[in-house]
Amino acid sequence: MGAATVILQLICPDRSGLVSDLAGWVAANGGNIRHADHHTDAGAGVFLSRIEWDLAGFGIPRAALPAAAAALAERLKGQAQLHFSDELPRVAIFVSKQSHCLLDLLWRARSGELPMQVPLVVSNHSDLEPLCSDFGVAFAHVPVTADTKSAAEDRMLALLEEHQIELAVLAKYMQVLSGSFLERFPDVINIHHSFLPAFKGAQPYHRAWERGVKLIGATAHYVTEDLDDGPIIEQTIAHVSHRDEVEDLIRRGRDTERLALARALRLHLRRQVMVYRGRTAVFA
Amino acid sequence: MGAATVILQLICPDRSGLVSDLAGWVAANGGNIRHADHHTDAGAGVFLSRIEWDLAGFGIPRAALPAAAAALAERLKGQAQLHFSDELPRVAIFVSKQSHCLLDLLWRARSGELPMQVPLVVSNHSDLEPLCSDFGVAFAHVPVTADTKSAAEDRMLALLEEHQIELAVLAKYMQVLSGSFLERFPDVINIHHSFLPAFKGAQPYHRAWERGVKLIGATAHYVTEDLDDGPIIEQTIAHVSHRDEVEDLIRRGRDTERLALARALRLHLRRQVMVYRGRTAVFA
Amino acid sequence: MGAATVILQLICPDRSGLVSDLAGWVAANGGNIRHADHHTDAGAGVFLSRIEWDLAGFGIPRAALPAAAAALAERLKGQAQLHFSDELPRVAIFVSKQSHCLLDLLWRARSGELPMQVPLVVSNHSDLEPLCSDFGVAFAHVPVTADTKSAAEDRMLALLEEHQIELAVLAKYMQVLSGSFLERFPDVINIHHSFLPAFKGAQPYHRAWERGVKLIGATAHYVTEDLDDGPIIEQTIAHVSHRDEVEDLIRRGRDTERLALARALRLHLRRQVMVYRGRTAVFA
Amino acid sequence: MGAATVILQLICPDRSGLVSDLAGWVAANGGNIRHADHHTDAGAGVFLSRIEWDLAGFGIPRAALPAAAAALAERLKGQAQLHFSDELPRVAIFVSKQSHCLLDLLWRARSGELPMQVPLVVSNHSDLEPLCSDFGVAFAHVPVTADTKSAAEDRMLALLEEHQIELAVLAKYMQVLSGSFLERFPDVINIHHSFLPAFKGAQPYHRAWERGVKLIGATAHYVTEDLDDGPIIEQTIAHVSHRDEVEDLIRRGRDTERLALARALRLHLRRQVMVYRGRTAVFA
Repeated sequence: MGAATVILQLICPDRSGLVSDLAGWVAANGGNIRHADHHTDAGAGVFLSRIEWDLAGFGIPRAALPAAAAALAERLKGQAQLHFSDELPRVAIFVSKQSHCLLDLLWRARSGELPMQVPLVVSNHSDLEPLCSDFGVAFAHVPVTADTKSAAEDRMLALLEEHQIELAVLAKYMQVLSGSFLERFPDVINIHHSFLPAFKGAQPYHRAWERGVKLIGATAHYVTEDLDDGPIIEQTIAHVSHRDEVEDLIRRGRDTERLALARALRLHLRRQVMVYRGRTAVFA
Repeated sequence: MGAATVILQLICPDRSGLVSDLAGWVAANGGNIRHADHHTDAGAGVFLSRIEWDLAGFGIPRAALPAAAAALAERLKGQAQLHFSDELPRVAIFVSKQSHCLLDLLWRARSGELPMQVPLVVSNHSDLEPLCSDFGVAFAHVPVTADTKSAAEDRMLALLEEHQIELAVLAKYMQVLSGSFLERFPDVINIHHSFLPAFKGAQPYHRAWERGVKLIGATAHYVTEDLDDGPIIEQTIAHVSHRDEVEDLIRRGRDTERLALARALRLHLRRQVMVYRGRTAVFA
Repeated sequence: MGAATVILQLICPDRSGLVSDLAGWVAANGGNIRHADHHTDAGAGVFLSRIEWDLAGFGIPRAALPAAAAALAERLKGQAQLHFSDELPRVAIFVSKQSHCLLDLLWRARSGELPMQVPLVVSNHSDLEPLCSDFGVAFAHVPVTADTKSAAEDRMLALLEEHQIELAVLAKYMQVLSGSFLERFPDVINIHHSFLPAFKGAQPYHRAWERGVKLIGATAHYVTEDLDDGPIIEQTIAHVSHRDEVEDLIRRGRDTERLALARALRLHLRRQVMVYRGRTAVFA
Repeated sequence: MGAATVILQLICPDRSGLVSDLAGWVAANGGNIRHADHHTDAGAGVFLSRIEWDLAGFGIPRAALPAAAAALAERLKGQAQLHFSDELPRVAIFVSKQSHCLLDLLWRARSGELPMQVPLVVSNHSDLEPLCSDFGVAFAHVPVTADTKSAAEDRMLALLEEHQIELAVLAKYMQVLSGSFLERFPDVINIHHSFLPAFKGAQPYHRAWERGVKLIGATAHYVTEDLDDGPIIEQTIAHVSHRDEVEDLIRRGRDTERLALARALRLHLRRQVMVYRGRTAVFA
């Protein structure tokens, strides 16, 4: 992955001179910019920026950088997020019974394709424990019923805290997280097995088959309290025909789900995604 | 396009031996089969077949073929449609102000890519009259208002009859045809500028932008009284990003619309589409 | 996967009445046809057919079917291949050091998505032994050098025979099989990491980067003695940009390789592929 | 298209601080940056930048801007190109007998989708004169034979000069431009009807059919003296099957050709393409 870099994501009210201000700030501190991407949403009057520069030789020490970035953001009346490419985020994967997304993510993490650590897998079923064991990942079986949901979520939150998890990925986790959970742990990515906003909710492949669509899709998105309405990161599609039964749609869909989720997660982990006003800017 | 062929589309209750019965019937009459496609919807108990064979040398004379096909269908308790590849269907194109689909279809008809004649274009605006004049196609300006809709549709139906039209194509026609119109003239194909069933109804690109989708689509479908719910023939998509404004979605969408409509129309004209239970089988 | 079926693949000189002859033969023996696909290569005068019908209730006993199919083929002066959908072919996977295709195939076999057994993995390196162990698959380490190639291939052939292997899949196996090997074991599928015929031979991603292409591809094909010239089964592509370094092409390429290989293998295993004159007909 | 902007494309040796220098120069002159894209080719030590800002209110007068940009480039030891979005480039289209790309480009120019003027069409055949006449574009018939090629190219160059043409687009022009022509008029974009580098040279669809590929492609590229080896701007593909004859490949290919050429041309006209070392950076 090359030498370590600093990644600054900044969102602030738009005005003239912002690109120069930001690039000038990096340059004034001796930073060698690798990537600089900006986007202005003229209608919303919002400016978004992602700047990545070499950590080595930068004038502000690593330990002092978060405070410096916060001060910069305050001056621009915006918000900043700072990341270091050599810090591998700790990610928990939530699953139910299906293995395809989990196996894919574990393999991509192990091969270095996804820059993350996976110290924890959470599931409401125990089926995928052996797979996690093969990969040496802790597996927490947390059953969920209507009655126990609140306690189960408390247990999950405790697990996330214990394992110092930064991001949760719902990799075909067939439970809905409550608003209260999301308030306490907001950084969650989900894969939905349809081309949103088509076929929100349950059994999208059955409904797609009923409707007779010629393309099926998968959507990776940030989770919000409004189910299937969160900011979209990535969408993929596959062609289907009248020969495909519902099971064929499900089978073909697995490939689109795996790809959409892996791509979205890579974009997130490399800090190429910024969220604003219910939408994402993806600096790919 | 090669030598003339006969195309038989048959739909009937499923039972054993149907492929043999049909192919045997063609062979017994000396037909040389070019293409034979079948589909069984096991859940519905329906059998669909499309058989195409050389017209030259076939034992049943052309004039007697429709009756022979009807008798065959009756014997199988189904319905048959018979077509001859050397008969160019007469198609009317309905438009409003946008030219991209119309120009595309007129060019494809002239170049022989779409096996059809276009004797008539109908529009509720006069903007596209010059384009039709370039291609030597009759242009009928039929304004539509809430008050005059019924009379306008009567005039359109009279035009379709006068020009002996077999199929109407709504190529960005921004009016809804009434159920009464469709009852009297049911063979209508429409292009909807979204990936149905997402963004049914008005202004799909605006709503797609609002939702922050990463793919936009177009859907060519047969028209039914339930708006945007007719059997889907073809769907195409295009990638979009946060950099794309609504106008960019509209611009990118035009290419997907043209392609989806042209492909769907070619499939229909070559009798490769069969409709059953609100869905299509596309023998491509 | 449903009830067991019989699949007949037949290739013979074209003449009138073949579809009827074949379907009639199945029907005369009480067979209920599920799928019937045909293709005529008019230029070559060749007729190809794939017919699939229910095994249960068929008039010719299973044990007698191969002889019956051979007799049918002889009568049509062609060749037939007969398969039963409930027999899972025994497949060996050849690999070198890269795991992505192997893991993908093992997972798809285990989940039932690929109807096959994998009793054996062969590799010229030992890196992937642990992965095979996780899946309970025998792993044979057969090093290959210029000097030992002939002996190594003899050992591989002995392994294939010992494990009663029907098909070998080269899943990023970085050695060329000799003509002599292929003569003795001809059923081999390979994944080549380019959009053939572009970038035949070594280091296709490096050469694709040098050329500045905007799309990269992967090609799954049957192996012939002429390297990278065998009949193509499936091709997939991915978009790339100037931002992508060679390593990014390799990373993106892995997904296209996995998909192309898995799709090609599924088509082969379901007997949907027929080879003739260096090309394939894929009845999908 | 909104208010007029200035677009600066700069290529220079890489060093620290370049993004800041460029953005600072724009800001110091009161410019409001709309888009700023950069790319560093680390291997080549080359820095590429495209910056777009509002023309209105910029401190340097329009007339003085070219000299100011040149001075800036000199200071950075690089080369700059300056464009104003309200200047529509004058483009000549070269064709032979096929109309699909020409019609598409003329329609896109007229609708404003392609920001250009087309004062001239050049052809070695007279077939497309009526189409140009429909669009009110001058048509120059310049026949080319082996004997007259040099004189014909002289005449073309005179026409390009007379019509003050900035860019020539070869829209299925079936002649090869000589090195001498390209020396005198280097800005030429071509559409090649294959997925380069596969099937360079003549009759790519025939050879693609022979090879049995499952995808065909089209490539829009800048023209260099080495035929089909120029920098690639855009590539598109279409799926094909064994059912497709050569004519079907040609037909399906026409859609990929039109799209690849139109997209490439739009990118070029909006100055989103930069060429270096035989490759392109496309800031899309």
